[in-house]
Amino acid sequence: MNSLEKAKRKPTHITHIRVRYGETDRMGVLHHSVYPLYFEEARTDLLRKSKMSYKELEDSGIILPLRDLAITYYHPGYYDDILAVRVTLEEIRGVRLIFSYEVTNENKDKVAVATTTLIFTDAGTFKPIRPPADIVRLMLEIGNGE
Amino acid sequence: MNSLEKAKRKPTHITHIRVRYGETDRMGVLHHSVYPLYFEEARTDLLRKSKMSYKELEDSGIILPLRDLAITYYHPGYYDDILAVRVTLEEIRGVRLIFSYEVTNENKDKVAVATTTLIFTDAGTFKPIRPPADIVRLMLEIGNGE
Amino acid sequence: MNSLEKAKRKPTHITHIRVRYGETDRMGVLHHSVYPLYFEEARTDLLRKSKMSYKELEDSGIILPLRDLAITYYHPGYYDDILAVRVTLEEIRGVRLIFSYEVTNENKDKVAVATTTLIFTDAGTFKPIRPPADIVRLMLEIGNGE
Amino acid sequence: MNSLEKAKRKPTHITHIRVRYGETDRMGVLHHSVYPLYFEEARTDLLRKSKMSYKELEDSGIILPLRDLAITYYHPGYYDDILAVRVTLEEIRGVRLIFSYEVTNENKDKVAVATTTLIFTDAGTFKPIRPPADIVRLMLEIGNGE
Repeated sequence: MNSLEKAKRKPTHITHIRVRYGETDRMGVLHHSVYPLYFEEARTDLLRKSKMSYKELEDSGIILPLRDLAITYYHPGYYDDILAVRVTLEEIRGVRLIFSYEVTNENKDKVAVATTTLIFTDAGTFKPIRPPADIVRLMLEIGNGE
Repeated sequence: MNSLEKAKRKPTHITHIRVRYGETDRMGVLHHSVYPLYFEEARTDLLRKSKMSYKELEDSGIILPLRDLAITYYHPGYYDDILAVRVTLEEIRGVRLIFSYEVTNENKDKVAVATTTLIFTDAGTFKPIRPPADIVRLMLEIGNGE
Repeated sequence: MNSLEKAKRKPTHITHIRVRYGETDRMGVLHHSVYPLYFEEARTDLLRKSKMSYKELEDSGIILPLRDLAITYYHPGYYDDILAVRVTLEEIRGVRLIFSYEVTNENKDKVAVATTTLIFTDAGTFKPIRPPADIVRLMLEIGNGE
Repeated sequence: MNSLEKAKRKPTHITHIRVRYGETDRMGVLHHSVYPLYFEEARTDLLRKSKMSYKELEDSGIILPLRDLAITYYHPGYYDDILAVRVTLEEIRGVRLIFSYEVTNENKDKVAVATTTLIFTDAGTFKPIRPPADIVRLMLEIGNGE
């Protein structure tokens, strides 16, 4: 398997989200603060494809607060647009869980790209913890959905 | 004390809130779903004037989920407006805690009026509970701030 | 056709919405201010079934700001729940457009019921206007989707 | 004037914002998607100190959509916290307007840092435009508020 094939095998998923009226602002476009909610919905959908959903992960005592968020906005989203949010699990490195995102609209315009870094965190102490090996395996085994 | 004086003595408070850009919608006005957040901020401010803040109430094991919300919208709110949100504690009746709200802008336009009914609820069981007498007393003793 | 049959023929639609993580609050439940966004999404979906979507309506110069909102909350919504939001176009009366809503979860618990009154409004003047007869007809002709 | 003095002279402002209940999530902390709204409020406050508010800028036909957003989250924000959001106008470069932010709580914990890049944009064409020299001057002349 060459590196291209390996890259293609990263766990990935596309969630389609329709822009709500109240998510637009007086500029007439999808407000920039709503994108993180879309990313969250997409990575929840991705993790649901594993044998442990994000909700089950939290119920087991591990939470995933955000450490880093970076978004570049290329093209406005509009009310009633159906946006395709592709999320990819890029890497699990120590306590870090890194996702990337690409948002496109129905005309195939690139709307935005982003990355987020989440930290495996003990729900009781709110301190970073190494994720159990079986959780890492379950996550990395998620197919790429294509 | 006549009934007018009694009415005047209900616990009340005015919170000033500036409309954020992202709280407007493509119609150019404050989106109707944001008002409940303003009401929540105003009643948090009102309760802070008692000897037990809403946060301390929750820490003591009592939460206050909403049962009823009714809003009438009269006049748009606009970006950068400073809105005055007057909240009044109307009544504590059994497990119910009832507030009313009036929102006005800097031109004294009546922007909206509303009422909310909250239920004293056990944080552990999520079942309604009668509020302890001392909490009721603390709430009703809040001055009217004028 | 008797009145029951007539009632059944009111335009109606069910939209399924999954609760986002960021839409919950520290009480662990879907925050009450998010429901109006769900209702908005549901009535956008209902109107899309007519020959004139809400977006096209706005593009034609008519906007529909909210006049009244009333919600009763019966049962919490939780993160990752799929909620069924049934919206029904109850009535067009003068400048008023009245919808009702019922929200249920996957266990068939009744989560909330609500009504909203919207006002047909000229986008230029922000004054109420009688809706054109053909728009009223298009809306009332929407099937009940069942 | 040495470079330290110059750095100190960048237009800056501190806005105090109290965390709303509905802005928290089921993890019990301020949700990460709310921070961009706080940044927006802070830079609106900063620009208000110039002779041209952001609202007046928009009314003159120039809008400022976001191009880039990057946030690092260090410490949770909690319900009822009063957060200090310091915004600094870092640079105006061509069509770009760059701000940085630092969020601290009442215990002086560093809650988050961020940068945003906004693009001077023609409200009619939605295309980037060079800002008029007088607007640039008004912005850069804003004091540092300390």
